Amino acid sequence: MMVTMTYTLVLLRHGESDWNAKNLFTGWVDVPLSEKGVEEAARGGRLLAENGVLPDVVHTSLLRRAITTANLALNEADRHWIPVKRSWRLNERHYGALQGKDKKQTLEEYGEEQFMLWRRSYDVPPPDIELGSEFSQDGDPRYAGEAIPRAEALKQVLDRALPYWEAEIVPDLKAGKTVLVAAHGNSLRALVKHLDGIDDATIAGLNIPTGIPLVYELDENLVPVTKGGTYLDPEAAADAIKAVANQGR
Amino acid sequence: MMVTMTYTLVLLRHGESDWNAKNLFTGWVDVPLSEKGVEEAARGGRLLAENGVLPDVVHTSLLRRAITTANLALNEADRHWIPVKRSWRLNERHYGALQGKDKKQTLEEYGEEQFMLWRRSYDVPPPDIELGSEFSQDGDPRYAGEAIPRAEALKQVLDRALPYWEAEIVPDLKAGKTVLVAAHGNSLRALVKHLDGIDDATIAGLNIPTGIPLVYELDENLVPVTKGGTYLDPEAAADAIKAVANQGR
Repeated sequence: MMVTMTYTLVLLRHGESDWNAKNLFTGWVDVPLSEKGVEEAARGGRLLAENGVLPDVVHTSLLRRAITTANLALNEADRHWIPVKRSWRLNERHYGALQGKDKKQTLEEYGEEQFMLWRRSYDVPPPDIELGSEFSQDGDPRYAGEAIPRAEALKQVLDRALPYWEAEIVPDLKAGKTVLVAAHGNSLRALVKHLDGIDDATIAGLNIPTGIPLVYELDENLVPVTKGGTYLDPEAAADAIKAVANQGR
Repeated sequence: MMVTMTYTLVLLRHGESDWNAKNLFTGWVDVPLSEKGVEEAARGGRLLAENGVLPDVVHTSLLRRAITTANLALNEADRHWIPVKRSWRLNERHYGALQGKDKKQTLEEYGEEQFMLWRRSYDVPPPDIELGSEFSQDGDPRYAGEAIPRAEALKQVLDRALPYWEAEIVPDLKAGKTVLVAAHGNSLRALVKHLDGIDDATIAGLNIPTGIPLVYELDENLVPVTKGGTYLDPEAAADAIKAVANQGR
């Protein structure tokens, strides 16, 4: 007899926020879920319950769109009582000086090439946000004492998310817990890049749909048993991936 | 110059639940907030924000009416991102075999004397709940490995809440954190009895209103600077205390 143990990791991207709906660059600006986003979170929770994927612990960012998504989804799955851990290292990519700007206007102002570089290049961040400006996070008490970024590309997101992955998430997985990470498009893309060993160019084309749990079974070396994981609603995921790819166009 | 340091503790009783509204004994049955309860939780959060009482950490029970209250109140106060700790030791009193029963019917069936003894005696618990019965918690994964009660009077609530107070809440207070405890009528009465040194007979007459933060400033020996603490909306608290006292009559 051979017994194969796997670790179970569930990634959940928050549902639509007020600013997704308005097509603004959000980054670390702490906007709430839209009504649609609230529904998406509840659907995510129902998918967990229906598939018997029951988290034992949840990790979230410090942003309310991920926190509310986790709260609503876990309540729906009757797992509202599990332990919670939070970190800015799971936050969305910091969009620097673009935070608060309209995506379409930014495209028109800077042109397609610069726009796509800021949106999709692996390691070229947008300009730093001005300290003290409306959408800057300096002075926000939740980041007190932390060396937080003023702009990030995906590379910088991966660089600050990985220490948290290693120090906080991996130990929970190795303790046999089913781990839910409720976070953002780019912090989850960073984790997926790491898990699936995706190269810097290919990751640009990878989108993670909102509100649909993505389940990874990981082997003893934390390598995915199925590359790319498994969405709990594969059809809805495929449709949503197309929609995300068209964002801002 | 004399500098006096105090510790800040905030107690918040969850808002109305579906079963409060229906006048059923709830105890550890995990019912959701009613619509009114959701509004009460948000009001509690607004009171925190308006009074500049900003929690650095929150402790909740394992029951969704307290967890949802904490989530909604903290979101309203822009403190949704603070660390969270949960324990069954902050749960409502276990109402034993009365869980799920109508309060008025129970009063008629058992008579005023027995009814008031179960409701208000300090140390006489109701009959144990039958294991495997509809409203029993045996087999509930959130209590796996814990020696949980099958019925409690207030004394038993205090006995199981105090170790959590000492081990988890006091260290947060002594670290200078503003601590929010989002819990239940009886687990909060137990803490208040301990803090204010209320005797076993007098505690029977003490009611804590729902959704109104009760702030204790504690001295270095964790003795309240103002006995009974201070409600953030004293007028609403006085009205609500009267309403609670009339419950089940």
